[in-house]
This record gives sequence, structure tokens and C-alpha cells, in this order.
Amino acid sequence: MKDEVLIKGRIRLPRLLEKLSSADAAAEFVKDGMTVGMSGFTLAGGAKSVPHAIARRANSDDFKITLLTGASLGNEVDSALTKAGVMARRSPFQTDRTLRDAINRGEVMYFDSHLAETGELLRRKQIKPVDVAVIEAVAITETGAIVPTASVGNNEIFAMQADKVIVELNLGYSLELEGAHDIFCASHFPHAMPIGIMSPNDRIGSTAICIPPEKIVAIVVTNEMDTPSQNLPPDEETAAIASHLIEFFKTEIKHGRLTESLRPLQAGIGTIANAVMSGLATGPFKHLTMYSEVLQDSTFELIDAGMMDFASGTAITLSPEKSKEVFSNFGRYKDKVVLRPQRISNHPEVVQRLGLITINTALEADIYGHINSTHVMGTHMMNGIGGSGDFTHNAHTAIFVTKSVAKGGVISSIVPMLPHVDHTEHDVDILVTEVGLADLRGLAPRERAQAIINNCVEGEYRAMLLEYVAEANLRGGQTPHVLEKALSWHQRLRETGSMLPMERELYRVA
Amino acid sequence: MKDEVLIKGRIRLPRLLEKLSSADAAAEFVKDGMTVGMSGFTLAGGAKSVPHAIARRANSDDFKITLLTGASLGNEVDSALTKAGVMARRSPFQTDRTLRDAINRGEVMYFDSHLAETGELLRRKQIKPVDVAVIEAVAITETGAIVPTASVGNNEIFAMQADKVIVELNLGYSLELEGAHDIFCASHFPHAMPIGIMSPNDRIGSTAICIPPEKIVAIVVTNEMDTPSQNLPPDEETAAIASHLIEFFKTEIKHGRLTESLRPLQAGIGTIANAVMSGLATGPFKHLTMYSEVLQDSTFELIDAGMMDFASGTAITLSPEKSKEVFSNFGRYKDKVVLRPQRISNHPEVVQRLGLITINTALEADIYGHINSTHVMGTHMMNGIGGSGDFTHNAHTAIFVTKSVAKGGVISSIVPMLPHVDHTEHDVDILVTEVGLADLRGLAPRERAQAIINNCVEGEYRAMLLEYVAEANLRGGQTPHVLEKALSWHQRLRETGSMLPMERELYRVA
Repeated sequence: MKDEVLIKGRIRLPRLLEKLSSADAAAEFVKDGMTVGMSGFTLAGGAKSVPHAIARRANSDDFKITLLTGASLGNEVDSALTKAGVMARRSPFQTDRTLRDAINRGEVMYFDSHLAETGELLRRKQIKPVDVAVIEAVAITETGAIVPTASVGNNEIFAMQADKVIVELNLGYSLELEGAHDIFCASHFPHAMPIGIMSPNDRIGSTAICIPPEKIVAIVVTNEMDTPSQNLPPDEETAAIASHLIEFFKTEIKHGRLTESLRPLQAGIGTIANAVMSGLATGPFKHLTMYSEVLQDSTFELIDAGMMDFASGTAITLSPEKSKEVFSNFGRYKDKVVLRPQRISNHPEVVQRLGLITINTALEADIYGHINSTHVMGTHMMNGIGGSGDFTHNAHTAIFVTKSVAKGGVISSIVPMLPHVDHTEHDVDILVTEVGLADLRGLAPRERAQAIINNCVEGEYRAMLLEYVAEANLRGGQTPHVLEKALSWHQRLRETGSMLPMERELYRVA
Repeated sequence: MKDEVLIKGRIRLPRLLEKLSSADAAAEFVKDGMTVGMSGFTLAGGAKSVPHAIARRANSDDFKITLLTGASLGNEVDSALTKAGVMARRSPFQTDRTLRDAINRGEVMYFDSHLAETGELLRRKQIKPVDVAVIEAVAITETGAIVPTASVGNNEIFAMQADKVIVELNLGYSLELEGAHDIFCASHFPHAMPIGIMSPNDRIGSTAICIPPEKIVAIVVTNEMDTPSQNLPPDEETAAIASHLIEFFKTEIKHGRLTESLRPLQAGIGTIANAVMSGLATGPFKHLTMYSEVLQDSTFELIDAGMMDFASGTAITLSPEKSKEVFSNFGRYKDKVVLRPQRISNHPEVVQRLGLITINTALEADIYGHINSTHVMGTHMMNGIGGSGDFTHNAHTAIFVTKSVAKGGVISSIVPMLPHVDHTEHDVDILVTEVGLADLRGLAPRERAQAIINNCVEGEYRAMLLEYVAEANLRGGQTPHVLEKALSWHQRLRETGSMLPMERELYRVA
């Protein structure tokens, strides 16, 4: 009964009450070969019930779908659909272990794509259109417009393009979320116009996704919260990385290249970038802003500390504690955050105009400053490129962070040559490890190599890289390499379990 | 005397006549350690006299400079400065054999950079500022503003930032060029505004570079034309590439993804891209437009054929015959072309908004569609990345073209793995060789490999790549590789002079 009242308070176009449906009935709208566009961006705001119903149906019904989302999903959705064998194709991002394994076995075709571009590809008809959209909402308005929950992602393009829209009405989210979104659809060829965002807090759209209400074919009521973020707490290395960055920013301020409010900040998802952002709280900054994808714990810490004035993103993904704190009293943040479609949060035009400082995590970097963000050993997909390319390519200052070693030292994050490149040296300004910071701006590759090796690497790996560079330089070139040794570190890791040769291993253990 | 009249007709602020100077005297303004910003973009509109005077001075005077330009220079400027030993650093682009060799020996530090970004790096103070600017002009206006010649490049930022500006007044160019330029300086942080270009023919700036006239410290009169373009004529392979592209565009039109005016076109410099653009004349297109860097012979051929309505660029670089034809009667093209600062011709915001079809040349590609545009054997610089990244990353449809083999077949342009990556798979939609066209949109890497190998490669190399992929797939991954063999083709080329193993070489000869 209470639920019913709640539902009615949240479905304000009375005729849509007829569309209340079970998840299993709603799942019947999804047919073999269809492209399904689901809400959800890095664990936040994803559909939670219908996807599992689709997976259940696959037990009795052999069918395949292409799944598009904002980014990664929580609530075991990717793994359930993978295990059910219903996922033929997936785009643009994922972080699920079961799905990842299926991708790496070649069973699921994964189109890993810049997050700003999925909506564009759909609008330009360059990939197959969305047939059915499944969108999580806190409410449906008087006009049938959909108010999203903790993320916007690609919801607006999915809902506009699909013939059939299934809404998951999540009663777990407070109605206070309404008004937090700014839904703007950029105009399109041949009459594209500028996007009117001049500052992270500019609002240019509406607070809900407007579609013809008759497209809503089912409304499924849920009451399950998003899977919380699994970020690890800051540690000694992430604190050191933050401290190097703070020193760098101070120097930039001293030289008049930045002010104490820096530039609007973008930070990648995950433990390291989040920890580095938290670390900025110890710096001498004021009136910080963010123009980013995901607002993580660190965003709200900086707001609470009075250091950050405003944060724009497309999703809010928090730890369990922070989630409770933020969402149970969202009103206090409502004039300090906005959630936009990912097409807008990651838009090259806006990123460029605002002049962002971008902080993203590298899986590994080479001595010339190329970045691998995605492929372990150059072959096996970790997550995906996400928004890192959208932001980095158009940044004011593009920063990549990584710990200098991984797995207790058997892997160096700085290697002679990458077996996979996601960001080229042209787009990488600053590289930071716990060892130190390399400022690569304006440097030729040979100079970049010295800056990176001397500032970002230590111990045996530094010695090995200096040896490599000395041998490579004898062969000449703008970007010297010893081709037959360039990937030898990865080969050694594959064969022996360590990038360190046996004779050097002794040093590491000692 | 005639010259004198001409000079006066071209220097319309009388007090500037006092600044008439010899090149040698003007060169004295350049001191050791300075950064010199010179006009010039892919052979067009470069300073021709003062740079040689700087080189001459170096015979008696030991000094070093950093040279910034728009892009590559003609008139032996880069080689003269390199031979004189005065060039310590160079950015953002070059195509000179002498300079290239010095770069590859590590003697000149070359900061190879996206062409849209040099001006931004200067404005943000992220690289050392320009001390002296040397700008070629057809005239100086009544207010002391500089009217450029056949390119704009970075002239406006160089002239604004330098304390001292040297003008090379080139009487070889007709005054008809005046009015062809649209000089617009984007507003800057923290008050950046949208760039008001909604269509390639929009004009948003002034026709000359406005600076305080007192910054003009010397005016050197010259009468030497630009080094002409050395593009080779179309051949059988470039015709085949053009024909594959025309078929592709026809299909796109049929599916409603393009109209018969396509989208505004961008084409890279050089023989292949120019030949492909010429080839479009045989297609069923109307009202084409360009929004590109360099307007080459093909642009004017398409305009003359009535197929192209308008072309926007930052430089005009033509063959000797076409140059005579176009520049001796420039009036007839004046409402059909515009030259903009390279910051604007290559601006991510505008490229994105206009939705360009970009056509750039690959040095080599790998089976997954990564592109190497710059580094021979992964180490030795050819030219530079130029504007290819500016355009490709933000394109509506990003196309790369290359002949499938080079050097009579001993080099395959499609290889298992690249030893250098300039454009990642995420930014490459279409790959075309004379063999055929691979449409990579929306495909996972394993699918991309099949599309590329089966459509773009033939003969022994196709067989070898299929073998490689089969072995790589056994190891699994999103992007399968056999690490110890991934660069073996390049190693074999280095050791034996051919990518084909000896036993396969027989097939090639037969």
C-alpha cells in the first residue's frame, strides 16, 4: 500500500500506471538480435531487475542481444547476461570479471569505445540502432518525461532512439534527486550549433528525458541500490603521487600558468585517481571545480571541506558509507552538482573550452610517454578506454598517474615499449608515479625518456631502462628502440612471471 | 623604382616605410637562445629571406634557436638552418631531408605536435614564448595590420606574442590575396567562448593580423615564390583507392547516412590523399565542401569542375602549373576559399560540430586498425603527425588510406603489430588500400582483423597475416598477439631488406 502511494507519487502521468509490469513480462519485449540500450554508468543508475529477467528467459529461449550502456554496470548484470549466453556484443565499457573473461576468450564481441562517441555513432546510424531501452528512473513526470537516478549516461539517446522504452522505477532513491540532472541533446548535422556550457555549473537542458509517453511499454518497480564503489583507501604510494601533483600545481601557480582554483578537474574512475583527488585536500587550493564523468567519494570530500565549489559529471559512484551520507540528504548538494548526458560531460568542445586538468590512471607507460589504459600484456582486456581519450586529447593539462611497479615488483609500470597504445605521446603532458613527476611538455622523445626514467622509476628497473635507452640511442632515430628487445620485458613476464631477469631478481628480494 | 611604388602601395602605414631593412640587418634581432616563430605551412607562405640571413650569421656567430612554424617550410629554410648548426629545437612539423636526418641523429630536438595545439601551448605558457616573429605578408594595412600570403598557420599567435616582428613583404604575390584570410583568435581561459563557425564558409574574424605597429622592427622585401608541391600524379593504386572510397560513399548515401554533398572533407597532405581527392571528381557528388588544413591541386580541380562549393584551409600548396593558374587570377576563387589560423582550421570544436569526413595517409597500419603516421621502423621520424590527430579524433568518419605494399613489395603496409602508434583503433573508422576497403565501425578487434586482412591485403602477406592471427587467437585476448613474433616483420626488414621471409620471396618474384 505504501509502495502503491509511492508509485503514484512517482508516476505523475496517470495513464502510465497501466504500464506497471513484472520484470519477466517486460523482458518479453526483448527479441533475438535486438540492440538493447540500458542505463548505467560505472555501477551507478543501472537497470537492476529487467536484465536479470532477460537472463532468466535465456534458460528456456535461445536468443542473443547487443548490449549498449553508459559504461560499466553493477548489480551482477553483465555477469548474469554473460552466464546466460545471451550477450553477443557489448559496448562501450565494462568492468565485470565474468564478462571480461568471455571477451578475452573471444566469445563476446566487445566494441571498446570512447564514451563520448556511442551516442554520436547511434545518431549518425554508424552502428545498429537501439531497439529497446531500459532506463532506471526516480520518477516519471506529468508529461511522461523520465527522471534518471544516479547517472545519466546514454539514457537520453537510448530513450529517444528506441521504439520501446522500459522504465525501472527505483523507490530506493529519494525524490530529492529530481532536479539534479541537466538533459541536453546537442543539435545535429547539418545544423549543429555550439554547446552553451561556459562554466562547469552552467545548465542548458531540462531536468528529465522528454520522450513521447506512448513509447513507455512497461514500468517495473524496484528497490535495490547500486553496487557501491570498490575503491581501496589511499595508501603510501597514492599519497606520494598526490603530493608530487600538489608540488607541480604550486609551481604552475607560481609561474602564472594556473591560479589557486586550478582549472576544472577531471579524474578517472578507480582507486588511484580517487585517492589522488582526495589528496588535493591537503593543497593550497580554493574554489576548485570538476567537469568529469564520475563523481566519487573524493568529490564530496572536497565539497564538504569547502575546497570545491561545483562538480559536473554523468554519474555518482560512492563507497557504501559515502553513498548513505550523500543520497540520504541529497538536498544539501543539489546546488553543487549536476549530472549530464555522457555526450556532454565528455564532449570535446566543452572539454577544450573549459580547459580541463585531466587525471587518469595508466595501466602502463613506455619511456616515451605513450599510455596503455586497457590491455594486460597488450592482448587481454582489463576494462576499456572509457572517457580517458575524450578528456585527454582535449585537455589543458593531461596527467597520467600509476604506481611505478605492480604485483610486488615483478611488473614495472614503465616499460621500453608498450604492446598496446591507447594514448599517444602527443596527448600526454605529465606522468606521475610515487617516485616522482615527469613534465613532458614541449620535449622531444629522447628528452621525454630521460625525464620519465629519472623521475618516475627507481632501482633495478631504472638501471635496466637506462641500459635499454643507451643501446637504442646507438641505433638512432627520433624515438630510438631496439626492436628485438622492445617487448622482451613482457615476454619475460609471460615466461617467468617477472619482468626482472633472474640475475636481477636477487636485488629485488634483497 | 617600380618596386618602390609597389612597396608603398603595400605598406600603407607611412611611418613603417622607415623599417625597410636588409635581411641581414633584420636577422640581427635574433639572439642566442631565442624562440623564433616563422610563418609557413606545408611549403606555403613561409619567410624566404631572413631565415637564410640567420643561417649566414651562424658562420661567424655561434648561436642556437628554437624554431616554431605553422608546419613544414619550403625554400630550403629548414636545411639551411640545420646545416648552419643554428637549429637546436624544432616544432611542430617538418618535411626536410637534411633536418630529418639531424633529428634522427638526435642533434635537433624535435617536438612533433598536433598542429592545432602549438598556439594553445604558447598561450598557456606551457612551452617557451616566441621572442621574434618572422611573417611573410602581401601588405601592411593603414593600421599596421599584417596581411599574410598563401598560409596563415600560427602567424597570429607568433605576431601577438613576440616583442619584435619582422615582416617579409613578398611582391611576388598579387594583392588580390588580400581578403582571402579570416583571422580569428579564440577567446581564452577563464572566459573562453564558442567559436562561431557553423559552416565551412562562415567568416568570423578580420582579414589581417592586428598588432601594435611599433612591434614591427624590420620589413624585408622579397620576390620569391613558395617551393611548389612535389605531389606525384595519381596512379593505378591511388585510382583504385579513390574508387573504393566512392563506392563506400555511395553506400552511405543509399543508407541515409550521408547526402550527395557528403560532409565537409578534410584531406591530408601528400600524393595519396591528393590523388584520392582528385578521384572524387568521378563520383556522383554535388556541392562538396572542404574544411581542411591544406588546399592542394585537387581542391581547385573540384572547384573548377563545379563539384565543390567552398574550401576552408590554413594554406594553399600547389604544383607549379596549378600555382600559376590559381595565384595569377586569384579573384575568381575569392568567394570560394578562406584561409584561417591553423588553430581554427584544425580546432576540435569546429571539426566536431561540422562533422568532417577525414582522409589521411597512413605510413602503416596493423591488423587491428592502429595507425603509424610518422615513424619508419618505429624509430626514425619521417615528417610528423601534423593535423591528422586534430581531425581524426573528432571526425564524423575517419578514413585512412595507404597502398598495401611499399618499395616494390618488400614492405607490407599492413603488419601484425605497429612499432609506433599515432592513432589508436578507437579513432579509425575506415581503412582503404588499392586492394579494398575495411569498414571497422562498431567492430571488436578480432572482427577488425578479419575485415582488414580480407579486404585490404592480398597475396603472400594476406596468407602470412592469417597465419599470425590464427596463432595469436590460440593465446586469447580482446586483441590477440604473439608477442615474440609481433614485431618480427620489422626485424626481418631490418636484417634482410624484406618483410617477406626468404622462402616466400620466391612467390613475390614469380
